[in-house]
Amino acid sequence: MFLSRSSPARRRTSAPVEQRSPRAQARLLNQVVAGCHRLLSERGESNSVAIAEEVLGLYAGLTAEQRLAFFKVLDTEFGPDPKAVLDAAQRYAEEPEATRLMALVQAAEPPRQELLRRLNRAPGGTAVIIGMRRALLDLLKHQPALAAVEADFLHLLSSWFNPGFLQMEQVDWRSPAELLEKIIQHEAVHEIDGWADLRRRLQPDRRCFAFFHPQLPGEPLIFVEVALVPDMPAAVGPLINARDEPQGDERQFKVATFYSISNCQPGLKGVSLGNFLIKRVAEHLQREFPQLHTFCTLSPIPGFAAWLHKHAPGLRERDDLAPKLKERALKALAALVQHGGEPAALASLEPAKASEPLREALCTLAAFYLAHESVTPRGDPVAKFHLGNGARLERLNWAGDLSRKGLKQALGLMVNYLYDLRHIEDHHERFVHGEVVASRALQRML
Amino acid sequence: MFLSRSSPARRRTSAPVEQRSPRAQARLLNQVVAGCHRLLSERGESNSVAIAEEVLGLYAGLTAEQRLAFFKVLDTEFGPDPKAVLDAAQRYAEEPEATRLMALVQAAEPPRQELLRRLNRAPGGTAVIIGMRRALLDLLKHQPALAAVEADFLHLLSSWFNPGFLQMEQVDWRSPAELLEKIIQHEAVHEIDGWADLRRRLQPDRRCFAFFHPQLPGEPLIFVEVALVPDMPAAVGPLINARDEPQGDERQFKVATFYSISNCQPGLKGVSLGNFLIKRVAEHLQREFPQLHTFCTLSPIPGFAAWLHKHAPGLRERDDLAPKLKERALKALAALVQHGGEPAALASLEPAKASEPLREALCTLAAFYLAHESVTPRGDPVAKFHLGNGARLERLNWAGDLSRKGLKQALGLMVNYLYDLRHIEDHHERFVHGEVVASRALQRML
Amino acid sequence: MFLSRSSPARRRTSAPVEQRSPRAQARLLNQVVAGCHRLLSERGESNSVAIAEEVLGLYAGLTAEQRLAFFKVLDTEFGPDPKAVLDAAQRYAEEPEATRLMALVQAAEPPRQELLRRLNRAPGGTAVIIGMRRALLDLLKHQPALAAVEADFLHLLSSWFNPGFLQMEQVDWRSPAELLEKIIQHEAVHEIDGWADLRRRLQPDRRCFAFFHPQLPGEPLIFVEVALVPDMPAAVGPLINARDEPQGDERQFKVATFYSISNCQPGLKGVSLGNFLIKRVAEHLQREFPQLHTFCTLSPIPGFAAWLHKHAPGLRERDDLAPKLKERALKALAALVQHGGEPAALASLEPAKASEPLREALCTLAAFYLAHESVTPRGDPVAKFHLGNGARLERLNWAGDLSRKGLKQALGLMVNYLYDLRHIEDHHERFVHGEVVASRALQRML
Amino acid sequence: MFLSRSSPARRRTSAPVEQRSPRAQARLLNQVVAGCHRLLSERGESNSVAIAEEVLGLYAGLTAEQRLAFFKVLDTEFGPDPKAVLDAAQRYAEEPEATRLMALVQAAEPPRQELLRRLNRAPGGTAVIIGMRRALLDLLKHQPALAAVEADFLHLLSSWFNPGFLQMEQVDWRSPAELLEKIIQHEAVHEIDGWADLRRRLQPDRRCFAFFHPQLPGEPLIFVEVALVPDMPAAVGPLINARDEPQGDERQFKVATFYSISNCQPGLKGVSLGNFLIKRVAEHLQREFPQLHTFCTLSPIPGFAAWLHKHAPGLRERDDLAPKLKERALKALAALVQHGGEPAALASLEPAKASEPLREALCTLAAFYLAHESVTPRGDPVAKFHLGNGARLERLNWAGDLSRKGLKQALGLMVNYLYDLRHIEDHHERFVHGEVVASRALQRML
Repeated sequence: MFLSRSSPARRRTSAPVEQRSPRAQARLLNQVVAGCHRLLSERGESNSVAIAEEVLGLYAGLTAEQRLAFFKVLDTEFGPDPKAVLDAAQRYAEEPEATRLMALVQAAEPPRQELLRRLNRAPGGTAVIIGMRRALLDLLKHQPALAAVEADFLHLLSSWFNPGFLQMEQVDWRSPAELLEKIIQHEAVHEIDGWADLRRRLQPDRRCFAFFHPQLPGEPLIFVEVALVPDMPAAVGPLINARDEPQGDERQFKVATFYSISNCQPGLKGVSLGNFLIKRVAEHLQREFPQLHTFCTLSPIPGFAAWLHKHAPGLRERDDLAPKLKERALKALAALVQHGGEPAALASLEPAKASEPLREALCTLAAFYLAHESVTPRGDPVAKFHLGNGARLERLNWAGDLSRKGLKQALGLMVNYLYDLRHIEDHHERFVHGEVVASRALQRML
Repeated sequence: MFLSRSSPARRRTSAPVEQRSPRAQARLLNQVVAGCHRLLSERGESNSVAIAEEVLGLYAGLTAEQRLAFFKVLDTEFGPDPKAVLDAAQRYAEEPEATRLMALVQAAEPPRQELLRRLNRAPGGTAVIIGMRRALLDLLKHQPALAAVEADFLHLLSSWFNPGFLQMEQVDWRSPAELLEKIIQHEAVHEIDGWADLRRRLQPDRRCFAFFHPQLPGEPLIFVEVALVPDMPAAVGPLINARDEPQGDERQFKVATFYSISNCQPGLKGVSLGNFLIKRVAEHLQREFPQLHTFCTLSPIPGFAAWLHKHAPGLRERDDLAPKLKERALKALAALVQHGGEPAALASLEPAKASEPLREALCTLAAFYLAHESVTPRGDPVAKFHLGNGARLERLNWAGDLSRKGLKQALGLMVNYLYDLRHIEDHHERFVHGEVVASRALQRML
Repeated sequence: MFLSRSSPARRRTSAPVEQRSPRAQARLLNQVVAGCHRLLSERGESNSVAIAEEVLGLYAGLTAEQRLAFFKVLDTEFGPDPKAVLDAAQRYAEEPEATRLMALVQAAEPPRQELLRRLNRAPGGTAVIIGMRRALLDLLKHQPALAAVEADFLHLLSSWFNPGFLQMEQVDWRSPAELLEKIIQHEAVHEIDGWADLRRRLQPDRRCFAFFHPQLPGEPLIFVEVALVPDMPAAVGPLINARDEPQGDERQFKVATFYSISNCQPGLKGVSLGNFLIKRVAEHLQREFPQLHTFCTLSPIPGFAAWLHKHAPGLRERDDLAPKLKERALKALAALVQHGGEPAALASLEPAKASEPLREALCTLAAFYLAHESVTPRGDPVAKFHLGNGARLERLNWAGDLSRKGLKQALGLMVNYLYDLRHIEDHHERFVHGEVVASRALQRML
Repeated sequence: MFLSRSSPARRRTSAPVEQRSPRAQARLLNQVVAGCHRLLSERGESNSVAIAEEVLGLYAGLTAEQRLAFFKVLDTEFGPDPKAVLDAAQRYAEEPEATRLMALVQAAEPPRQELLRRLNRAPGGTAVIIGMRRALLDLLKHQPALAAVEADFLHLLSSWFNPGFLQMEQVDWRSPAELLEKIIQHEAVHEIDGWADLRRRLQPDRRCFAFFHPQLPGEPLIFVEVALVPDMPAAVGPLINARDEPQGDERQFKVATFYSISNCQPGLKGVSLGNFLIKRVAEHLQREFPQLHTFCTLSPIPGFAAWLHKHAPGLRERDDLAPKLKERALKALAALVQHGGEPAALASLEPAKASEPLREALCTLAAFYLAHESVTPRGDPVAKFHLGNGARLERLNWAGDLSRKGLKQALGLMVNYLYDLRHIEDHHERFVHGEVVASRALQRML
């Protein structure tokens, strides 16, 4: 009889962790490691799907410590042989010819890459590998030696989650509840407070798009929320207010505003997805609504308040700034203090009641933070993302986000980034070389 | 306005090859190469999908000579830097630590791999890359220096066409005509002579399964045809005879016989697919029909007649054979000649009329060919495939294939290989080490 | 140029009701009626889809009074001609022969039936016709003369919503949110309090099935909720408690309990749906879980408290009851009063604290209500439904529904009806002839 | 245990006709009739789906004679009661009030209508009922007494196959082979000679659309083939020539020509489908290609040669014709004879070699046949269909169909009918009143 490949793995995984005897549990790691070696062996090749399924079934039963031990084994037992690589590199350096190059490439690739490719042959393998990387990323802080192992995971996942393999799908009120539940759960920018709140964001003048991978059906990888509006918006409240009526007249849609983008898979951290999603959504909307003339974001500035607290006081000591700019920033800082902007007061700032000078001082400092700090390690992560994608810093918005989170992180300030495909290569390159492209209005503030 | 990424490429590809001026044509290769460099540059990263689409659009217009030139550029301009690899290898050999390993891995990977990954970001990129490899494989014979470039294509395609990413689907009479037409066209073992012929092969007691990749919808990669029968079949005629009535009683299905397997994508040559397909189909059928007790093939022996002509005469000079075996083979060879088996006579052999001694001599030589030559370069390609998958050589069938092709290639002989998952690892390993596992009956013949 | 059929209707409906001038509004009814006559004319037949679409577009703009007037026109202008029918009937009575019968059938069918069939040719026609009947049902109380018009609607809708045309589909957490929202909204028995509450009812040990009609995609017609449990349940609380964990072990599923059934389309009132749905679901579940041995309901007794208040006091005057039974019921009634069961006290009854005699008196009276009153106009609507479907009265459950509604309607009592397909024809027939089939235990109570 | 409704029927149908004993076979009809009565009884209502399934299972085993007997039972035992109808008609004539009307309508409807509606509740019931009507239509010629039974089938099927319930779908090369095979088989106008021939008719400049009913998935009811061309075509050869290349430039599509329409379900004869299909396809194409300015047919004249042979000689005796017209026709008839148009010669006519006078005479007679005979029982069935749909007689085409069938039926002549939605009501009405609307050119010929 032909034994189903799935039998062995299923049989084993059906014995859950807690029911395993201490002795069986201790044996488990050895079995996983032996399975990995068998999977990479010539002998295992003929039966690799079944072995991969078995190994993944066993892996699922490992304790946290065993998982760490497993990753260490990946590092020590499944890396390239230093001597062999050196030999191959020398031979190639002597004569850079095809056969020698092929030998070198093969010698230099860590065998764990092939191991992961073979594990991926099992049904559901991709999801397990993403889970492995998630665990690995958590361990990395205290286990820097695992960096090379993690790099191999990232390398493969980047290849497999190539945007050419991703499917963009619109998420709307006809989507399965199971999927919508994940959207609610993963929304990371402007919290979705239940189904009524979500529903507003899926009505005809709001859109939500997600990337999916064929191997992970029903699992959004990343999603972006868009508002179709007549003008570039200055505040997020009206965009997501569940009580607001949707705008029915499609002819009014002139501006597509990306107001939230959230990753759903921590195990895919570092795999470029958001950049591609924003651009593919923009194209899609441009086709659907040819009258759209502006694609922009309405973004939080999550690092501003912390920067103000931690880095602004040290501005005077900075020597990397143009004198005029430094003077402008210091003046704003002084104005801030003078008009009541001490930390404690800012913590309970009510934007609507702020004095004009205070407001001006804060805006100037935010402009400085975004336009100058974004090219430094002190910069804002959201600014780095959009500027790195080739967007332009467009407009600061006072009182743009009056939620508790918005006030705490950025004193209610928000910012628009503008996506103009004709210029994104240029903007991106200038950003890489340390220059932030900003609108005239923002330039004038500094 | 947000310009659609697809516009530039489409605009250019819309100017077909023949309408291009000689000057424009000459410029094309430069543009393709420049586009590749731009795509790999930091600057290009922000706009990579659009650039990839443009490059692929331009590539489509290259002439055959320009394509060769392009592959040479991939070899010379997009390979790793020998000196940098050597440095990295030395540093790693000195201290095999994570950072150094990561630097080494990166230095050793030919940049054209990342180039291909980025080209793959364009819609339809995967199909173009497969087409590139197909062209490259054709050129390889006369351009051995391109072997390393080809290896990189194979490496990436193997990763992307990992069986974990492939979808197995049944092909039947409800499948789109467009797909069925491709099945007719690609059937490589037992020709399908039109739609009536195909129809017989899709009835309930015959099955056809194919692998698909999500990125190539409607494009079968490889397909296998199966007959569900009461006993292991000895001849292919009854399995594919369009006039035969299908066997309706499913309880009679005891043996699943793979009688044809065909690749549809020359550009995926060398990517392991058939092995996985056979095993996944077997599992699927075992679930559907638990009463199936045997999974086997009914296979051609495409190299037998040629071997008889070319290699059998030299048997006497061979010194790699056990004396007894050699004696047995030489005796059969003598019997063959004695009973009228000279080449000219064999070419018009009618199996039904062959004398018993002639038949015996041919069967013995075929058994020798399959059981011993399969581990040598002289071996049969189909035998190598199934034995390498861990199957067992099971039974020789006289007059198994009376088609013109069957007579020409193997004098009408066919063979069954038996798949028994409990033993495939073992069989595979023994095969790798030079031993063919055969049934007792076949062993006795030698 | 070929004018699209949809143009005229769309153009008109695009002028919404409120923007219509009083004069235009007054003209509208005439236009609708004229359109109906045109649609039924020989001339209109060649263009009926376009005319139907136009008429439905105009109908959508009618005010409530105009709709009433329209239905009156259907009654007076689109009924059969009394004289013609009489002639045809006489001719048929003289000689009941095929041609005369055909003439009679045609003469007797109200022309509005053909009118409705032609209106149904327009896209979306079925939904509008269901909406017409909904409006008509509301008017019927004060407009008894419209009964024959209403009967024609019911006749056609019953034919079109024949169970042979309905699709049963499982509703679960993968269903579109849009559909789930309708389930929440239409649940009529045990209110669904938001999405978390709904989710519990869609987990593996709870099922929900609905009927759909191909012409009304995404619109559930009726749905039933089922609990898969080890034993016949006595209380609804545990079945729908959102905090309860689902029962994961399918082997424990022995009893399928229908605990809620709700109609979604008031315009389909009187079209038999629930009976068919319950039986088709039972079959489906029996196939999925062969170990299920009991199919029953856990049902409310919505009319019990009202009956106790209104009809129980008159029991003594009843002369349709067997003496023994009457005695039993009167004794229970006396016991009820004696142990504090006066109306005001019952209104705030706490089942858990009720005295044994009170409980016994109430149960006896409920048994009497269900087993005897169900065949009278005083009977319980839910009892009439299930007993009419051929189910058996199985068990009374004290404190089965402690919700405010359950206490108010039935003092917390619930009842199980048992569906046993081997006996439903017999039970149904006995019910039609005035007999309720009850379990021995219930018989013994009386 | 809940017995599946399908068990009884399946069990019985599994005993095939030929294995039934003569006695069992004789009993079968009684069982079917008894089942029908039970299904209509009050008792049967609670279990109607199971009973319907059982009856249909038994019906499948009836012999041809038993089927006839069954239909006679439907006539005699399931018709309305003459006396009851007469009473109801009298009561209604006395006072045409709602209750009396409802009683009348109910009394006059033959009970077999409700019987068919209940049989339709079984899975697959609709297909069986269509099959019953097919058998009934065949019997009708010799059994005129069954006309009223047949009328009831037609009445119900017309209601169920209302165009509002039909789905129009495009059939193309991506359609299932199973469906395409049915298209090949049912094409009734211009035979499809195998798959290559079919393929030509599904390419982008040719279209095929079919109506489907949700209850008969994969079963086309009727289909129409369309050619998208620059000008109104005069010959069918170029439209269906498999060797012709498809016209790729969509901007050239100005005329949509319906060149073939075929019914697939003999059991639906008389249910209006073609008229609706043509108009829905026209709309669909107008939306897809707004530049289309003409919708016409290229139609055969299947009755022309037979008319010429049988009816033309009697023209002189006709007194229903205007004198001028009669004179014109007789003159053409004389010219025909004079120029060699005697029957034997016409039978082997080669249109390309016909003399101008012969050609003129034939065209005049064809124009007469189409423009005048179409409103008489002698008329052409295809002409009656399109003119009855409101189309206009547009153009005669000499040598339009040179196939054997085209030459035999119409001496190679073809005709275009023009569909112009703005005028179809008017044209249809005039046709109903005996007038054929023709183009000026055609009018001038007479």
